[in-house]
Amino acid sequence: MNAPDKFTQLLRYACDPLPASSKRYIQGSRPDLRVPVREIMQSNGETVAVYDTSGPYTDPQAQIDVRAGLQALRAGWIESRGDTESYAARIRKALDDGRQSEEHDALQLLRAQAAGLQRTPRRAKAGANVSQMHYARKGIITPEMEFVALRENQKLEWMEQYAANTERDQRLAGNSFGASIPKVVTPEFVRSEVARGRAVIPLNINHPEVEPMAIGRNFLVKINANIGNSAVTSSIEEEVEKLVWAIRWGADTVMDLSTGKNIHTTRDWIIRNSPVPIGTVPIYQALEKVGGIAEDLTWEIFRDTLIEQAEQGVDYFTVHAGVRLPFIHLTANRMTGIVSRGGSIMAKWCIAHHKENFIYTHFDEMTEILKAYDVSYSLGDGLRPGSGADANDEAQFAELRTLGELTQKAWQQDVQVMIEGPGHVPMHMVQENMTEQLKHCHEAPFYTLGPLTTDIAPGYDHITSGIGAAMIGWFGTAMLCYVTPKEHLGLPDRDDVKVGIITYKIAAHAADVAKGHPGARYRDDALSKARFEFRWMDQFNLSLDPETAKKFHDETLPKDSAKVAHFCSMCGPKFCSMKITQEVREYAKNLGVSEEAAAEQGMLEKSQEFKSGGGEIYVPVNGVIPIAQG
Amino acid sequence: MNAPDKFTQLLRYACDPLPASSKRYIQGSRPDLRVPVREIMQSNGETVAVYDTSGPYTDPQAQIDVRAGLQALRAGWIESRGDTESYAARIRKALDDGRQSEEHDALQLLRAQAAGLQRTPRRAKAGANVSQMHYARKGIITPEMEFVALRENQKLEWMEQYAANTERDQRLAGNSFGASIPKVVTPEFVRSEVARGRAVIPLNINHPEVEPMAIGRNFLVKINANIGNSAVTSSIEEEVEKLVWAIRWGADTVMDLSTGKNIHTTRDWIIRNSPVPIGTVPIYQALEKVGGIAEDLTWEIFRDTLIEQAEQGVDYFTVHAGVRLPFIHLTANRMTGIVSRGGSIMAKWCIAHHKENFIYTHFDEMTEILKAYDVSYSLGDGLRPGSGADANDEAQFAELRTLGELTQKAWQQDVQVMIEGPGHVPMHMVQENMTEQLKHCHEAPFYTLGPLTTDIAPGYDHITSGIGAAMIGWFGTAMLCYVTPKEHLGLPDRDDVKVGIITYKIAAHAADVAKGHPGARYRDDALSKARFEFRWMDQFNLSLDPETAKKFHDETLPKDSAKVAHFCSMCGPKFCSMKITQEVREYAKNLGVSEEAAAEQGMLEKSQEFKSGGGEIYVPVNGVIPIAQG
Repeated sequence: MNAPDKFTQLLRYACDPLPASSKRYIQGSRPDLRVPVREIMQSNGETVAVYDTSGPYTDPQAQIDVRAGLQALRAGWIESRGDTESYAARIRKALDDGRQSEEHDALQLLRAQAAGLQRTPRRAKAGANVSQMHYARKGIITPEMEFVALRENQKLEWMEQYAANTERDQRLAGNSFGASIPKVVTPEFVRSEVARGRAVIPLNINHPEVEPMAIGRNFLVKINANIGNSAVTSSIEEEVEKLVWAIRWGADTVMDLSTGKNIHTTRDWIIRNSPVPIGTVPIYQALEKVGGIAEDLTWEIFRDTLIEQAEQGVDYFTVHAGVRLPFIHLTANRMTGIVSRGGSIMAKWCIAHHKENFIYTHFDEMTEILKAYDVSYSLGDGLRPGSGADANDEAQFAELRTLGELTQKAWQQDVQVMIEGPGHVPMHMVQENMTEQLKHCHEAPFYTLGPLTTDIAPGYDHITSGIGAAMIGWFGTAMLCYVTPKEHLGLPDRDDVKVGIITYKIAAHAADVAKGHPGARYRDDALSKARFEFRWMDQFNLSLDPETAKKFHDETLPKDSAKVAHFCSMCGPKFCSMKITQEVREYAKNLGVSEEAAAEQGMLEKSQEFKSGGGEIYVPVNGVIPIAQG
Repeated sequence: MNAPDKFTQLLRYACDPLPASSKRYIQGSRPDLRVPVREIMQSNGETVAVYDTSGPYTDPQAQIDVRAGLQALRAGWIESRGDTESYAARIRKALDDGRQSEEHDALQLLRAQAAGLQRTPRRAKAGANVSQMHYARKGIITPEMEFVALRENQKLEWMEQYAANTERDQRLAGNSFGASIPKVVTPEFVRSEVARGRAVIPLNINHPEVEPMAIGRNFLVKINANIGNSAVTSSIEEEVEKLVWAIRWGADTVMDLSTGKNIHTTRDWIIRNSPVPIGTVPIYQALEKVGGIAEDLTWEIFRDTLIEQAEQGVDYFTVHAGVRLPFIHLTANRMTGIVSRGGSIMAKWCIAHHKENFIYTHFDEMTEILKAYDVSYSLGDGLRPGSGADANDEAQFAELRTLGELTQKAWQQDVQVMIEGPGHVPMHMVQENMTEQLKHCHEAPFYTLGPLTTDIAPGYDHITSGIGAAMIGWFGTAMLCYVTPKEHLGLPDRDDVKVGIITYKIAAHAADVAKGHPGARYRDDALSKARFEFRWMDQFNLSLDPETAKKFHDETLPKDSAKVAHFCSMCGPKFCSMKITQEVREYAKNLGVSEEAAAEQGMLEKSQEFKSGGGEIYVPVNGVIPIAQG
């Protein structure tokens, strides 16, 4: 079938609200400040609110037209600050879409389709600085900051409940390794974290469609998913569908790593339709502009590309400013050399010209540009290890220290910064990455890829990396870049993207729980309670992937009746370990005594009761292999 | 198709040697001591030897007849010790196959088929003790211990290389949290570890088919897979096929958790055809014998079941001796109560009779039985937490302390012991489990289920638990019980079992690398080297699951030519980050100077070379989304 039809179908599917879920908006201090939350309705009437990255797409009320783009949620906020001006955009060049872009007519058509997506760009007025960090440092709490605060809190009552529980039972308190996670996130707390550079709110003033979110050690751990166009699936609609699919499952930010054809036009479509921050690696497009010849790259071409993308609304740039000429030889003895693509491009340029990296030498000038649009830096780790053998070596840490210097230079202009991290790192070396990053990068948010804890499982690197991601997230990493099962092997498909995202949601959530983030435990407890009370549909609906959970259960017990049955297919219908505890509790309630006492008492009475009754209590259900040992 | 045909087909598939792999035997000090190793042949002529759990099934030379069972590898060793006697087995009862077993004729047929599998049982002569621990404590190095030593060492040269590397670069040394991992495993080391109870070699004298293996903190981390019969797939052949499938992918031990029909006869088939130790939970069969009525259980019935299974050759018993009457009320306030099936059975019995757990009160008598057959204890954690909320609570730790007491009682009779562990445990509470276990259980090997680090991902609990398993394995757990994607939801199929095993091989290997186990890194380095040198088939063949790795690669680059191409589909044909490093190295070789110097020098020369040449070096391959960020 042709792309648009397929797209319409795929998009409809990706827009369906998740089971038993409805979108609620928390009303902020102003009418146009409404923070989305996904509420999961349980069969017992209780609701569980979860962080919702899916944007308007899962809101049945919302009108979605990818040719027009999403509503400009923040337009009013930006306008009212009065420190920006709209201006005639940089003149569009044919090269912007790359040398291999569609022959003229086809590209014209694509551009015509994207016509509705063109916006007049804004930039800071002369002398102004429009970064959230700048406002924060001036003591201004922006609507974006309030939005973030309300969004991070989810349900306030959880925070209070958590505080009470942990006072009662320290066992439940986490270990945050020196983070400063508040019981309740206030707008002022968000401001102070952004002001000191410990959190970033990636929001280009030319991407007003974004629902603001924060990346920082003292906030919920976030995850990024990578998408990007390709020659075979060049339908731009499909790129939008990939975006919607990724945020449906929980991607907090999305990187557009497009290469090749129609690179500029594709980005128009992605950004105009994205409610989450979009990151890019501008050197990819710059390289397209010079026909892929690294040594022909110049600061001027790169600079022009930065402005082009800033005008489109890219929220953060990955730049490999730390790949310095003197560091390149440090990779000579490595097992796997340089494995970052952007890092390799710059290394090749440095070798070819035997000159220092031009991104490094022009850093302050580059920062001037980011400042004018509030684009955030994601300082790339071009020398990250590509194998456990190369982990934490001098090349990696020399670059990391340089990224720390650059962080302070960026902060001198109040430009927001996060730091990218490895890569391939065995478990015993993971924490050192976090401590070194904190030490040298002044608590700027860490944004890591994995790390992969072993190299021997291609095809399962979402798992080898999910282990490292959960650990480094616990230690203090603010955002985890997902890895799909296809890592090292090829192009991920829809299912790979979903599996990668779910795996990383697991890692991020396990980290939040271990850090003792208030409210994080709530969803675990709600699901465990549903499990204990045999509310099967609630258990499925509360899970990260309700469809898969239900599907697996249906394979052995497809009947609806099984969804309310007081047993599961692991222990069978007539016997369930959880029932004993329930009997003891029932008994306690009826007796109205404390449960402990009841338990003691209960043993006596049950002693008679069971002996007299003694019906068959255990028959294995058909076809069951119990999995739990013992 | 009917079972036998399907079985033959499945078994043939499960017996195929893995790609580029051949079985080699390390010759021990006696002709009948031959230790299997899987050697993976690389295209560069180098071989990598990996620990091989698959037994004779993957040996083309071996004659496999599941109706006759495997060769009795250890028969001569046991015989020659002269401390055992064969005797008339316990009289077989109808009930042994359970109350729901096949109607008479069908069962007769099954038993007739199993006729070739009947062995006359052996037991210790009066007053003798035939446990490996007993020999070890008397200073005797058994062939079993030598077998284990050779098996753990894999390739001695790796140990030496590792020692050299870590001396040169401490970066590569692991952190074993106080374990005492030797550079080379000697038979004497194995003896000393078994003597002090820090390792177990689970080997019933009535299971001479086993290829000896050790479970201990100072050895490679092992994994267990659970199988078991069921009413729908009651073909006993299929149970054997499940066993062969599990050990093919790396299960070090297998637990037969059969319930229901033909339970005794099924076990005959599994044990006689298993080259890995088999564990059971005898209370399951005992419960079948009393028609599933927990309160009708008696010590006599349980004792009879222990002897029945010991005669068949079960290598380790999970017994829930720590579920004591006074502990049960400690679960009353829990989120999910008691989730261990065996634990629930005993809790129900205790409540019904208001008496202390009969397994606890008869512990020494039970140990007498295990001693006579060298069955090892796996002391079950019947009160393990079933949710993060219940982790590390008083119920769990009260039981753990009891298991510590029982460990010393077992050791008084030189009976081998391991301790089972949780369950559901958030990351920040995982290490406490290990330290408490070491403290209270006197370094007896820890055998944990997961632990699951969050409760919110049913359908992905192999991942939520794989994270915890890798961590606790690193901290010192000796064996990890796998969890499949179907955990909490239903019956795992072949693919689930495979995914569960591969996930746990990842966790175990990541732990070995982090602990700094000599030789563990070797496979990572070999695969990374193959990756760096674009030896694609070697990369696949060295991986834990070559079929899946190759399949994923073929999805984007199916041609054979791609298997030798100097690029992958992530960065395209004309540009690859790894190439730069290779060019620098090539250059160094030709110049015969140190690589560092060459790198510096190289930059200059390349500076000219590239400028003059400057051919197109980067064109994205068709249809590629780069996954690695930056």
